[in-house]
Amino acid sequence: MSTITKKGVRVESDSFGNIDCPADKYWGAQTQRSFTNFEIGGDNERMPIPVIHAMAVLKKAAAVVNMTYGLDQKVGNAIIQAADEVVSGKYDSHFPLVIWQTGSGTQTNMNVNEVISNRAIEILGGVVGSKKPVHPNDHVNMSQSSNDSFPTAMHIAAVVEVQKVLLPGLRSLHKALLDKQKAFSHIIKIGRTHLQDATPLTLGQEFSGYATQVEYAIERINQSLPRVLKLAQGGTAVGTGLNTRAGFDSRVAAEIAKITGQPFETASNKFEALAAHDALVQLSGSLNTTAVSLMKVANDIRLLGSGPRCGLGELLLPENEPGSSIMPGKVNPTQCESLTMVCSQVIGNHTTVSIAGSNGHFELNVFKPVIISNVLQSIRLLGDGAASFTKNCVVGIEANEKKITQIMNESLMLVTALNSHIGYDNAAKAAKKAHKEGTSLKEAAVSLGLLNEKQFNEWDLGTLRLAHTNFSIFTYRVQCVSRMEIIPHT
Amino acid sequence: MSTITKKGVRVESDSFGNIDCPADKYWGAQTQRSFTNFEIGGDNERMPIPVIHAMAVLKKAAAVVNMTYGLDQKVGNAIIQAADEVVSGKYDSHFPLVIWQTGSGTQTNMNVNEVISNRAIEILGGVVGSKKPVHPNDHVNMSQSSNDSFPTAMHIAAVVEVQKVLLPGLRSLHKALLDKQKAFSHIIKIGRTHLQDATPLTLGQEFSGYATQVEYAIERINQSLPRVLKLAQGGTAVGTGLNTRAGFDSRVAAEIAKITGQPFETASNKFEALAAHDALVQLSGSLNTTAVSLMKVANDIRLLGSGPRCGLGELLLPENEPGSSIMPGKVNPTQCESLTMVCSQVIGNHTTVSIAGSNGHFELNVFKPVIISNVLQSIRLLGDGAASFTKNCVVGIEANEKKITQIMNESLMLVTALNSHIGYDNAAKAAKKAHKEGTSLKEAAVSLGLLNEKQFNEWDLGTLRLAHTNFSIFTYRVQCVSRMEIIPHT
Amino acid sequence: MSTITKKGVRVESDSFGNIDCPADKYWGAQTQRSFTNFEIGGDNERMPIPVIHAMAVLKKAAAVVNMTYGLDQKVGNAIIQAADEVVSGKYDSHFPLVIWQTGSGTQTNMNVNEVISNRAIEILGGVVGSKKPVHPNDHVNMSQSSNDSFPTAMHIAAVVEVQKVLLPGLRSLHKALLDKQKAFSHIIKIGRTHLQDATPLTLGQEFSGYATQVEYAIERINQSLPRVLKLAQGGTAVGTGLNTRAGFDSRVAAEIAKITGQPFETASNKFEALAAHDALVQLSGSLNTTAVSLMKVANDIRLLGSGPRCGLGELLLPENEPGSSIMPGKVNPTQCESLTMVCSQVIGNHTTVSIAGSNGHFELNVFKPVIISNVLQSIRLLGDGAASFTKNCVVGIEANEKKITQIMNESLMLVTALNSHIGYDNAAKAAKKAHKEGTSLKEAAVSLGLLNEKQFNEWDLGTLRLAHTNFSIFTYRVQCVSRMEIIPHT
Amino acid sequence: MSTITKKGVRVESDSFGNIDCPADKYWGAQTQRSFTNFEIGGDNERMPIPVIHAMAVLKKAAAVVNMTYGLDQKVGNAIIQAADEVVSGKYDSHFPLVIWQTGSGTQTNMNVNEVISNRAIEILGGVVGSKKPVHPNDHVNMSQSSNDSFPTAMHIAAVVEVQKVLLPGLRSLHKALLDKQKAFSHIIKIGRTHLQDATPLTLGQEFSGYATQVEYAIERINQSLPRVLKLAQGGTAVGTGLNTRAGFDSRVAAEIAKITGQPFETASNKFEALAAHDALVQLSGSLNTTAVSLMKVANDIRLLGSGPRCGLGELLLPENEPGSSIMPGKVNPTQCESLTMVCSQVIGNHTTVSIAGSNGHFELNVFKPVIISNVLQSIRLLGDGAASFTKNCVVGIEANEKKITQIMNESLMLVTALNSHIGYDNAAKAAKKAHKEGTSLKEAAVSLGLLNEKQFNEWDLGTLRLAHTNFSIFTYRVQCVSRMEIIPHT
Repeated sequence: MSTITKKGVRVESDSFGNIDCPADKYWGAQTQRSFTNFEIGGDNERMPIPVIHAMAVLKKAAAVVNMTYGLDQKVGNAIIQAADEVVSGKYDSHFPLVIWQTGSGTQTNMNVNEVISNRAIEILGGVVGSKKPVHPNDHVNMSQSSNDSFPTAMHIAAVVEVQKVLLPGLRSLHKALLDKQKAFSHIIKIGRTHLQDATPLTLGQEFSGYATQVEYAIERINQSLPRVLKLAQGGTAVGTGLNTRAGFDSRVAAEIAKITGQPFETASNKFEALAAHDALVQLSGSLNTTAVSLMKVANDIRLLGSGPRCGLGELLLPENEPGSSIMPGKVNPTQCESLTMVCSQVIGNHTTVSIAGSNGHFELNVFKPVIISNVLQSIRLLGDGAASFTKNCVVGIEANEKKITQIMNESLMLVTALNSHIGYDNAAKAAKKAHKEGTSLKEAAVSLGLLNEKQFNEWDLGTLRLAHTNFSIFTYRVQCVSRMEIIPHT
Repeated sequence: MSTITKKGVRVESDSFGNIDCPADKYWGAQTQRSFTNFEIGGDNERMPIPVIHAMAVLKKAAAVVNMTYGLDQKVGNAIIQAADEVVSGKYDSHFPLVIWQTGSGTQTNMNVNEVISNRAIEILGGVVGSKKPVHPNDHVNMSQSSNDSFPTAMHIAAVVEVQKVLLPGLRSLHKALLDKQKAFSHIIKIGRTHLQDATPLTLGQEFSGYATQVEYAIERINQSLPRVLKLAQGGTAVGTGLNTRAGFDSRVAAEIAKITGQPFETASNKFEALAAHDALVQLSGSLNTTAVSLMKVANDIRLLGSGPRCGLGELLLPENEPGSSIMPGKVNPTQCESLTMVCSQVIGNHTTVSIAGSNGHFELNVFKPVIISNVLQSIRLLGDGAASFTKNCVVGIEANEKKITQIMNESLMLVTALNSHIGYDNAAKAAKKAHKEGTSLKEAAVSLGLLNEKQFNEWDLGTLRLAHTNFSIFTYRVQCVSRMEIIPHT
Repeated sequence: MSTITKKGVRVESDSFGNIDCPADKYWGAQTQRSFTNFEIGGDNERMPIPVIHAMAVLKKAAAVVNMTYGLDQKVGNAIIQAADEVVSGKYDSHFPLVIWQTGSGTQTNMNVNEVISNRAIEILGGVVGSKKPVHPNDHVNMSQSSNDSFPTAMHIAAVVEVQKVLLPGLRSLHKALLDKQKAFSHIIKIGRTHLQDATPLTLGQEFSGYATQVEYAIERINQSLPRVLKLAQGGTAVGTGLNTRAGFDSRVAAEIAKITGQPFETASNKFEALAAHDALVQLSGSLNTTAVSLMKVANDIRLLGSGPRCGLGELLLPENEPGSSIMPGKVNPTQCESLTMVCSQVIGNHTTVSIAGSNGHFELNVFKPVIISNVLQSIRLLGDGAASFTKNCVVGIEANEKKITQIMNESLMLVTALNSHIGYDNAAKAAKKAHKEGTSLKEAAVSLGLLNEKQFNEWDLGTLRLAHTNFSIFTYRVQCVSRMEIIPHT
Repeated sequence: MSTITKKGVRVESDSFGNIDCPADKYWGAQTQRSFTNFEIGGDNERMPIPVIHAMAVLKKAAAVVNMTYGLDQKVGNAIIQAADEVVSGKYDSHFPLVIWQTGSGTQTNMNVNEVISNRAIEILGGVVGSKKPVHPNDHVNMSQSSNDSFPTAMHIAAVVEVQKVLLPGLRSLHKALLDKQKAFSHIIKIGRTHLQDATPLTLGQEFSGYATQVEYAIERINQSLPRVLKLAQGGTAVGTGLNTRAGFDSRVAAEIAKITGQPFETASNKFEALAAHDALVQLSGSLNTTAVSLMKVANDIRLLGSGPRCGLGELLLPENEPGSSIMPGKVNPTQCESLTMVCSQVIGNHTTVSIAGSNGHFELNVFKPVIISNVLQSIRLLGDGAASFTKNCVVGIEANEKKITQIMNESLMLVTALNSHIGYDNAAKAAKKAHKEGTSLKEAAVSLGLLNEKQFNEWDLGTLRLAHTNFSIFTYRVQCVSRMEIIPHT
């Protein structure tokens, strides 16, 4: 039926008739139609490769199960071998379709069916394009519909990428921040609230906040996974499982779990699994929160590292590359910039995912490709971004202790420790007077008659519990000799 | 110090000096300054009352704990009584400040401090505005900073509203959808994917998808609560707990848990708790997913109820009010409209919360009021919206069985059941021919020579497992006498 | 037909039958039904008053035109009087319906029809609730449908609020920034890119950037108005104008223009005007850009004003209120905080408006109330926010010239001026060496053999054109005696 | 200085020292550092090619102007030739840097400087990597900073892509919709508001709404361009123009205008042009509105085309490919799906752009790459998406007139025309009775005693002005013989 009639071209066919396909690619008629009908965005907009590989994982798993239901062993084994080859990345260039195709991902499902069937035909010595002895629909797609296969691949791809890229990136960042938290635990610095001088804390405490944010980010992502581990496969066209055998759903999920090493299970309600993508919207929500957290951390670090001479200059960030094409010697917090850009992308992607997730109709949400491409981009960018930020910035951060101490000694906010002795209103008066007249707090307070020098020197001004429950505690005592200062508590 | 000097006016003071306050309100100088300095949006933009009540809960709890640390019992008890009165809603009009104030919520904290201190002064027979014997900072705000108090109130308010409004609303909706799932479990209807005719399912199965979405929404919200149950209180100004005693944090959290009946605990890292609001961003993410789910459900229901004569007409929605000011007799799916508008608001609010959450600086995020006001609006609108949708729409939905069957019988999609006998390509040809010529599938298939009449009638076309694991199973057999149809399986 | 049967209650009726309404309110049956059927969000969620007033403007205009088409003069004049009273704000409490009602705003249209008809009946001495001699549909709503009336009111309200609140607020901000641009035009300061030290500019130039942003914001908003000035009125139910006379559309628009003083015109395509709200989505887009601009401006100002002792401290912001409930003497950039919170709200509102705008079906978009309430909130908050920021912050900003100069003299970035003499690579070496060793640029450059002292002192290092085309130019010469510095150009 | 020391490797240098670069690529040290330091997202995340080409346009223009200021003619001409080659696309693989680099785009600027200088060196017979006789900074980047160059390239790329891809796509869609508007102008159909039956209109009128939306989208995009046509070039590092000559800005803009054929001009305020990207945020806002419009249009078309047997079925959409991998013969509205997915991406991109635009600090916004990559993706996707939708869907849409008429005749909404005779309340009663009892309106109205048969037949029920000002008018008369129907007006 199918033969090479023109140079470099193979004629393939589907229910719409014949169509020319490139002879050096395994794809068939339905892929070619989609390729022609959706000239949108070019090569950069191709369906993400993790989806293709996840699809091939599914095809392998389905073949394994179908063989127990009567699929010819030779055909089944050829499908398995071809699927493994797709997973290996060998045929990535055979998946030319863009994200902006049918909203069910049917065309990508068919692209995978066609590549695997043609390659399996080849393995079995058949004529590529003949659909014999391996038919893309009847054999590779056996017991499946795009409507359950594509969401299954979405979930596989998301989980695999979270485990492979995102969590390792966040864990490395968490570790690096924890290391800094410990390394900086002795450095007392001015706190800043409203960007204004506030009471002191240690630099280690400041970093403990960042480390905690990342720790919780990891937790939130893990918390979103259980639902993504539920697979739609077995629902077929509308969720009822027409044309599958009872039990196919659980068995194929078990097979996928075996292949990927992730605890996939079949979804208990297939109607929800096809018609909605709430599990991915929620995962995207956790990615969004992660982006929100990392935006704060990266912003703080570049502000603390601002300078070198005219900014806050409390941190010294690693210098990785020249910073300016015109200003010689300039070094910029480029890793922070990269990461905050990533965060802004992830937050916007989440809007896209939310809109797409909300627009399903009846038995099928047809925004599947845009949902998974945004989720996968967010996963990858956050994972890679966190890893890059860790390796090229966080691990190399040093505290500029001299500058930190110099700034700290400028502050008047230790006045807070006087509240319990002279009351808030009087303490406020003393602080304002000292700031206005450029004097010390003691001078101001004495001249206001709020206390005498002896009291100032002798009062117990309490301790600053510059500590954090997760690690060792440093306690300091506020002392007021000539000016208020913080000394280690003995 | 403070006396009534002008008619209707009481002079109050703070570290900025004297200022006139309305004599019939308990608020003091700092409230008055904020009121004057932030004329933004008017009365509609006031700090949400749940925040005010949560603040008063906190003030009560702090007083209880402070009394064990030396706060005068008489003063403490007066604070407790005044706080209880605030919680009761009696003084809601004494909190005039808008959301668009300082980003730490300090002014609302002071508003609460001032109202409670003045009311406590009154209880104790003092002169309102004198700050004696109950000082807003030294007594009501004792051991606290706005920087830990306001986020504590944010969390209290969010949890209380989730429990009081949101979860009850969602649970009632879930129950109503489950009821419909059961009631409609016998009604076979056409499935629709891509808005196009697909294979059949039962109306009960369709509703099972909706019920599952809402079930998972409840689960997601519950999953977001544990972090919101962690309280910042005890961190004071920058997270170090300056001016508090060790243990104050845990004890005040325990007290708040007792008052509210919710399992609040102290946050393990106070730096994160002041500088970031990731816990609320994540909760907002779960609200966002809920909105995405409800948008789908409400959209489907109005599409299925479209008509009465020119739409799909499969559902009969309750008629609650006249629908048109010009078209007599028109009834519209207004509850669906209300709910989908709510959903669009919640999704947008989530963008606001994400942006606000990402913009903290150093030891404090100063987008606190906008974060909590959006989270609370989303909670309330989703909760009320779900309840209204349930009561005024879902419980009254009836299936238009006659119309459903009539539409069902028009479909050609049962051809899918022929795949296993004649293959996908041939089945496609039969379906296309039947659609084009307006004939039955059997006629088309026979005339194409794909099978003979005998085969068509005798083949086992498999069963449609129109079922769902959560409840009783209905199995149907596809039968093909003159046309393909679905009959109950015996 | 309608009488007061119970104490405090008046029986009203519609096509659904009788219903009790509060006797002290003018609203009728359809309002009461909506009030009961949409218990969502409470009083805070009422339809914004500007929509109600705009509706009344429309009802007046329609009556004027209808009187020329045969509406009884007495009835018409009573409608006009009642509408004027509504516009005056006298009956604001008679509009209890929430935003979260029918998506066409029909119920608010009926609320206005009912209040005006009952008040007009009263004016004419009839029995309130009798619908005689003024019927809410047949007379007040004459020639109208909710479907063209509500979008008309949306557009009227948006334009009126833009003119009344937003543009004045932005204009005052623009003027204040321009004033600062001029006042600060002589102050040379360090520039910062990537938050890192860069080449200098004047503080006036920095403010010229802010002033320009606001100037363009005003321009963008004005640019979005022409389409909002097109009115849907006359399209009636689906855009065809059924039940109106030819010319009604233009005449009613002209009447509305006369009443409001704004150049309203009838929309050329009524189908678009009912089914889509792209004009408001685009206006919201301009509000969004304005928020983006103001976020930058307010952020910069608070960063430049950070301190007082431990931040950048280049600006002195006005002190408007005490900043901390625990840290005495602390003053915070609260106006910046308020404004940036407003901006985050506006950006999120825009997401809501975009989603709502995209979800219309066929002849009607039924997200009308949520669209207009978000647009109006954004308008009001930006207008009020800009005005408050101007009055309570910008006009009072002072430059801390001593600190600015001190910081400026720390910088090494003047090395950029050496590029043209020794090349970028060598200049970079000199700057790095100087920074590392804490020496001057000259010492570093000489010790690297890049130049000798004589060259350094004599080279023309070019001028810094610290200027801006809109106002007077200050030119400075880079001089290098002992260290590089900027001196006024003679 | 630079030689090939290892196989396949060329040693390049910058102020950080030596680094190996691939010998078969022109890029140099700074590119290589960025390539190594930002391993984020892989090849798919490369800086969009339109930015690279725009950069090269700028480099050419700068060389032209610099040659008049003393740049060696030979060097200048070599730069021009190399830049032209870059614009031609010949070296696209020499720009490996990802979007997620420094936020100023400095590294991409240096990538372009390095590629052009190395290629120019080669042209002049020098040693690639030697920086002689063409230095990437001193010659290719002459008079420029990344801080003005990159935003200039952003604006060039955006304008070029709008003109090349977006506007042609939208114009073709507009034309196709206008054609349908005309072709369908005679087809009367049921109107639908709230998804419920409403009064009729013509299918041409329905399409006129779509056409108008697209017409206005084109207008909005054009309206956003003037500000994007203003270029930052000449501001150099912070906006002051240090190291450029007076007039360079205008001259380089003029040169760019000449090269591109677009009316670029220099920005009047360079501080705004570097520190903010409001012009692109606003353009993105217009893209967002366009997405909102197209979402509505595509949604309507797929709903009107739903079926073929169980949906509305008023439109017949072109069949482009098989629709299901399991349901034979299924054809889906895939072009609508693709376009609505595009729209959801554009709306989310706009959130990203807004966040990125709001986060500038002082003299520089460092979210430049993420802003331009999102704007360019939105432009491309909307342009390609509109073109694909037009070509593969809109032009082939046919009206299913038989179905349209059949549906139309089911409706009761013509009752609206009775309002002026028997009043709204009575008309409502008749419609409800007719719907409930399945009778005609006439029967219902007569049996309710609201009119007699003679009146019903003789009354002038007015005309439906099924018309639209832009094209020929069809007027119909509502006639009521046995049932209400619409007949052509004579």
